[in-house]
Amino acid sequence: MSYNLRLLISCADKKGLIAAISSFIAMHDGNILSADQYVSEGDAGGTFFMRLEIEGEGFGLARDEFAGAFAPLARRHGMDWRVSYTDTPKRMAILVSRYDHCLIDLLWRWDAGELDAEIPLVISNHPDLASRAENYGIPFHHLPVSAETKAEQESRVLDLLFEHGVDLVVLARYMQILSPKFVDAYPSGIINIHHSFLPAFAGADPYRRAHDRGVKTIGATAHYVTDELDAGPIIHQDVAHVTHRDTVEDLARLGREVERRVLARAVRWHLEDRILVDGNRTVVFE
Amino acid sequence: MSYNLRLLISCADKKGLIAAISSFIAMHDGNILSADQYVSEGDAGGTFFMRLEIEGEGFGLARDEFAGAFAPLARRHGMDWRVSYTDTPKRMAILVSRYDHCLIDLLWRWDAGELDAEIPLVISNHPDLASRAENYGIPFHHLPVSAETKAEQESRVLDLLFEHGVDLVVLARYMQILSPKFVDAYPSGIINIHHSFLPAFAGADPYRRAHDRGVKTIGATAHYVTDELDAGPIIHQDVAHVTHRDTVEDLARLGREVERRVLARAVRWHLEDRILVDGNRTVVFE
Amino acid sequence: MSYNLRLLISCADKKGLIAAISSFIAMHDGNILSADQYVSEGDAGGTFFMRLEIEGEGFGLARDEFAGAFAPLARRHGMDWRVSYTDTPKRMAILVSRYDHCLIDLLWRWDAGELDAEIPLVISNHPDLASRAENYGIPFHHLPVSAETKAEQESRVLDLLFEHGVDLVVLARYMQILSPKFVDAYPSGIINIHHSFLPAFAGADPYRRAHDRGVKTIGATAHYVTDELDAGPIIHQDVAHVTHRDTVEDLARLGREVERRVLARAVRWHLEDRILVDGNRTVVFE
Amino acid sequence: MSYNLRLLISCADKKGLIAAISSFIAMHDGNILSADQYVSEGDAGGTFFMRLEIEGEGFGLARDEFAGAFAPLARRHGMDWRVSYTDTPKRMAILVSRYDHCLIDLLWRWDAGELDAEIPLVISNHPDLASRAENYGIPFHHLPVSAETKAEQESRVLDLLFEHGVDLVVLARYMQILSPKFVDAYPSGIINIHHSFLPAFAGADPYRRAHDRGVKTIGATAHYVTDELDAGPIIHQDVAHVTHRDTVEDLARLGREVERRVLARAVRWHLEDRILVDGNRTVVFE
Repeated sequence: MSYNLRLLISCADKKGLIAAISSFIAMHDGNILSADQYVSEGDAGGTFFMRLEIEGEGFGLARDEFAGAFAPLARRHGMDWRVSYTDTPKRMAILVSRYDHCLIDLLWRWDAGELDAEIPLVISNHPDLASRAENYGIPFHHLPVSAETKAEQESRVLDLLFEHGVDLVVLARYMQILSPKFVDAYPSGIINIHHSFLPAFAGADPYRRAHDRGVKTIGATAHYVTDELDAGPIIHQDVAHVTHRDTVEDLARLGREVERRVLARAVRWHLEDRILVDGNRTVVFE
Repeated sequence: MSYNLRLLISCADKKGLIAAISSFIAMHDGNILSADQYVSEGDAGGTFFMRLEIEGEGFGLARDEFAGAFAPLARRHGMDWRVSYTDTPKRMAILVSRYDHCLIDLLWRWDAGELDAEIPLVISNHPDLASRAENYGIPFHHLPVSAETKAEQESRVLDLLFEHGVDLVVLARYMQILSPKFVDAYPSGIINIHHSFLPAFAGADPYRRAHDRGVKTIGATAHYVTDELDAGPIIHQDVAHVTHRDTVEDLARLGREVERRVLARAVRWHLEDRILVDGNRTVVFE
Repeated sequence: MSYNLRLLISCADKKGLIAAISSFIAMHDGNILSADQYVSEGDAGGTFFMRLEIEGEGFGLARDEFAGAFAPLARRHGMDWRVSYTDTPKRMAILVSRYDHCLIDLLWRWDAGELDAEIPLVISNHPDLASRAENYGIPFHHLPVSAETKAEQESRVLDLLFEHGVDLVVLARYMQILSPKFVDAYPSGIINIHHSFLPAFAGADPYRRAHDRGVKTIGATAHYVTDELDAGPIIHQDVAHVTHRDTVEDLARLGREVERRVLARAVRWHLEDRILVDGNRTVVFE
Repeated sequence: MSYNLRLLISCADKKGLIAAISSFIAMHDGNILSADQYVSEGDAGGTFFMRLEIEGEGFGLARDEFAGAFAPLARRHGMDWRVSYTDTPKRMAILVSRYDHCLIDLLWRWDAGELDAEIPLVISNHPDLASRAENYGIPFHHLPVSAETKAEQESRVLDLLFEHGVDLVVLARYMQILSPKFVDAYPSGIINIHHSFLPAFAGADPYRRAHDRGVKTIGATAHYVTDELDAGPIIHQDVAHVTHRDTVEDLARLGREVERRVLARAVRWHLEDRILVDGNRTVVFE
């Protein structure tokens, strides 16, 4: 079966990095299908980011050989790097509460082949969306949360994720704040959709507050989750125009359309290894 | 010369308002060219807003008769109302500092017939843009501002505005905060363009802060100026998408395009009497 | 149960129409919740269009009285008019072939309360989407079509529609051209989604042709079906930006997002009686 | 003075191209600031496109040495290539008729530093816009065109362009069709703005035709000029939403905003060597 490698690299910028990397690939008979590169300018000098997609067919390094062969080069340049193989899709869990629009959209896109992932489970603190998940043949786990059981249930969620070998956690309107322990278990591995144009209206009830402020545009923001609420690296944002005629309910309706589109795009980019984190910003090689 | 009347009304909502108003117009042989209506729901009941455009030709009430004839109806329903005539364009002053993009755009649109106004003067706290205004034959007043002279110079600006019979003050990237006295002189009569998607990044240097936050969309907001900085009723907002490749300077460049478009549209709506203020929100009859 | 009336009117423009209509409503104690009006300018004079939403509660005319009471006024002004009641939702049939994205999106929105309709059936010339419809509890009819059976099967579709009292037929990527007989049975009652920005790429395989032409934006168009293929009155259009990197498959993927959004909005407007047809154009009171 | 090189390459795709090119740069001590790459799939195999931006400072090849040093590599891989230096801006001529919005926008952006070019002249078949150009200190040439003088005047335009060493010709709403001889003199060197969303409404009077068709979105298209009218490679497109209320004049007004934005972006990309032509499509490395 045909497959590709995706190689992601970041390190301090210097001359000759592209030559060094691409020569390494050429030396092992690799065919580079696409190459993206970017240098961000920071106070302490530039940081180099690169994404390569390499044809698996004909490439001279077997999976168990790649790390050993690449390590000396990586060490010399102080690279952070990772490689993935397109025939080994990531394993994605979806966490939801009661709103179904993001869940349904992700499942439909997944079913349509837009999202290259395995989805071993959907987890919710409410039972409502069980049939939505099961319609697509995906096991649904109901783990109700109360003030007393919050910590304990979160541990059970983590156990489930580990058990199922989950790489990516998608909070598809999951109305629970995660503990630092949970967040630390998935660095740059939890994507949340916030129903506002962050940093405006961070926190709860953004449509109500947007309506009260009389804004003429609402938005949605997909971001990686970090310990600081609604402050993690932004992956994607989009907006919809609204008018004075739109009630809070209308904002929510129009927002649902933006939310699901923004979340789906962020998830797709993550699954295709298009995102690198640069401090509190993201580099997205579309 | 052919002209129209524009009648704007707001009052507590009740049955029969449209019939009462349109019958009044019909009784005086008026031809309604367009009618827009909206009821906002507040805690203390609905508020009715209406905008009518009536053909001047054939209308039975002369300019000096309208108020007298309409007053009894207005009083009975507790209406706030105003009428304007399209052959008496509003008088608009433009206040600028050093950035020229909004000024040039307004002048070009005005020259192209997109903005139906007289522009008796442009005022600036810097001399830089004098030739820009004068190219279009518009007098330019340079009133430099220092910490010591701020209050005094603002008074001189106000004097100039009164002297020239100015109805609408446009802050086209005017980098001075106005005093409450100034703001009170032009209720719903000062339009500012803020170079962010308010309420995100209210205050100074929004593009720098947007870049630091790593947003993927920047915006601009046109709003009426009130005593609270950047918190007045929003008239229009729009956005542009940005990527990790865009520097602060790129955000400023892309932002200039959004700013001028958003400001021009807000000014146009104001000049065409399409905006009614509803608390801290605007009703815009596009 | 609370409900509203929606009254839609078109006629040759003349003075006093708004007064006549709103006075009629006021005379019968009606509370106008919203009023929209527009005059289109044609070669033979203006045409007046109006949409009124009137509170049912307290309105003095019972359902079986309205037509009789309104007829004299309508006759005097030569009005085309219709009235609908919000507690009697329209009956909508969805016709599909094999693509599921528009169907799923409509069903999800319907289930979420965004589309106020009854959906008595889904009809397809392929069996593939049966479970999609049945998941939402909607009967699915499979009527396969071949060159020989086309006319006969279309008659059976029409029979089914009549049998189920269908008001609105939505072609949600139904890959069959309808006969004039079918089209005539539903004047301004069949909505199609075309996967291009009409009139560009009318006809078959628009994404392939858009890719070959190297366009940088693709679109979708929702329109009423008339006898001339892809030439009926346009209800709504929107676009997505594409780049040289996007393959035909990518255009199709991006297009699916636009198609379903555009179709859903057009259907929503139709169900809320917001659309009036003006020759080959539409008046949409958003 | 600091400067960069921009190297653009296209050739038949094969393994090792990126390594070969980047190693060549590294061997000469070049620092690659940005690298973009793309492979288009055609019937006869892939075509490789690359754009490199290299720091001039420290690069080991002088301007007069580059071609000699790069030629063997280029020959071996059958490369089409060109190099430009950012301290040698392109020389751009703007051709206009009577509409001023695109001209003014380009001049303003140029003055604001958004367009890195020299503008030795503006040419028009009408005298109207002389002062617009001269305000920015740019010589204006009036070459009136009649049916009899068309060929002769076009020759004089070409002579002027050659005389002034013009690299890029921008048709900023120039209402004259160019002869094949003219077009051949500037392959991929003439940018036109068409006031429709091509291929819809190619040819004359697109806003009138768009209005008659009742479209809900209008657009503009910037493209390279080829011998076939309005059919050259598309560089950029964008749209604006319109409603039934918008007259032909409104479409023109809204369109002006889109036209100038789309044209400016295409010109900017060309000036920054971001565009490569791939048959009748463009590769744009944004």
